[in-house]
Amino acid sequence: MSKLRVHALTVSIDGYVAGPDQTLDTPMGIGTEHLHDWMFPTRTWHQIIGEPGGSDGIDERFAAEGFEGIGATIMGRNMFGPVRGEWAPVAGEEWRGWWGPDPVYHHPVFVLTHYEHDPIEMEGGTTFFFVTDGIESALDQARTAAGSDDIRLGGGAATVRQYLRAGLIDELHLVISPLLLGGGERLFDDDLGDAVKGYECVEVTAGEGATHVRLTRR
Amino acid sequence: MSKLRVHALTVSIDGYVAGPDQTLDTPMGIGTEHLHDWMFPTRTWHQIIGEPGGSDGIDERFAAEGFEGIGATIMGRNMFGPVRGEWAPVAGEEWRGWWGPDPVYHHPVFVLTHYEHDPIEMEGGTTFFFVTDGIESALDQARTAAGSDDIRLGGGAATVRQYLRAGLIDELHLVISPLLLGGGERLFDDDLGDAVKGYECVEVTAGEGATHVRLTRR
Repeated sequence: MSKLRVHALTVSIDGYVAGPDQTLDTPMGIGTEHLHDWMFPTRTWHQIIGEPGGSDGIDERFAAEGFEGIGATIMGRNMFGPVRGEWAPVAGEEWRGWWGPDPVYHHPVFVLTHYEHDPIEMEGGTTFFFVTDGIESALDQARTAAGSDDIRLGGGAATVRQYLRAGLIDELHLVISPLLLGGGERLFDDDLGDAVKGYECVEVTAGEGATHVRLTRR
Repeated sequence: MSKLRVHALTVSIDGYVAGPDQTLDTPMGIGTEHLHDWMFPTRTWHQIIGEPGGSDGIDERFAAEGFEGIGATIMGRNMFGPVRGEWAPVAGEEWRGWWGPDPVYHHPVFVLTHYEHDPIEMEGGTTFFFVTDGIESALDQARTAAGSDDIRLGGGAATVRQYLRAGLIDELHLVISPLLLGGGERLFDDDLGDAVKGYECVEVTAGEGATHVRLTRR
């Protein structure tokens, strides 16, 4: 069966995945400007933003893995965009994600939300589907869409925690970035309960810009 | 001026320095049996327990640093022993620490407590002094005792957090151990407030058994 995988989920040394005060201008919250610095030099990131070159080291290997064998993506609504509550235009237009007309996904993306919304078909094979009946439904739909490929679970942290609590994540690639945020949203928050005990750390590898940790379900 | 240094403070991937339910039999709490596995192969640890040999790699270098140029130690009462509340005998005898008749310190050790206790002079130069008038008093006394040497701040995590909140720690060597505890006592707990923002991560080095992080005051 296809796996549900988390990739490049980046935390600070003090355990935060995002800062406080997420807005349109600061989608990752305050203070997180450098949290993903490990990723920007990589070849994978260069490809995403359409620039040549990029590094081919350890950080690149981990960044690239997140795009290999993935047939569908699931993400929380806060990763999709800044709109909260009922859907509403942003700057006068329908919000269609952070990723421009041809998003990086090139496959079906299932956005978890409490508010119904018609699918949005983008260029390059990405279609955003909006799922209002829960994380297991989203996973079922993503599995069907992915076929024999795996499913990548994006953020935010609250979404990852929901799937962790339900024991539905198969592999989690965590990146520890060498900085302190001093506050924000935790990945390993108390609401996880005993869910973490179902996972084990199978690899720790020092990259050029961060430390890569691989967790798998026991 | 002499520095206040924390060494070998070991956290799990999910950020816990100790498990729940600290007792005489489980001084680090439940589930933490392997938290310090990185340290046991080192030459420094072998010296502490009086055995020959031990590793000489990266983990050893960091373990050894914790004993270099240290003239006094400060620790919380829960690191000193299992007695809570008023001092009382343990198994019929006065509690004299976890470290046998000749403790590893070989210098004055200042134990933070709310309950007065006469100093305890051990073999090998270690004397336990009990400080009831707060962390700054303990630091003053330790500075006087250490002379031109530095002061090492031991655990537990609550004690380290107290000194972090007060901005009194100069260097903090954090070790990230490749396991998940799923609960327990956090180092970077919310009660730190903005204190962490006064520190920066200046080094991350992969050791044989864990990842070493060096934080210094900005």
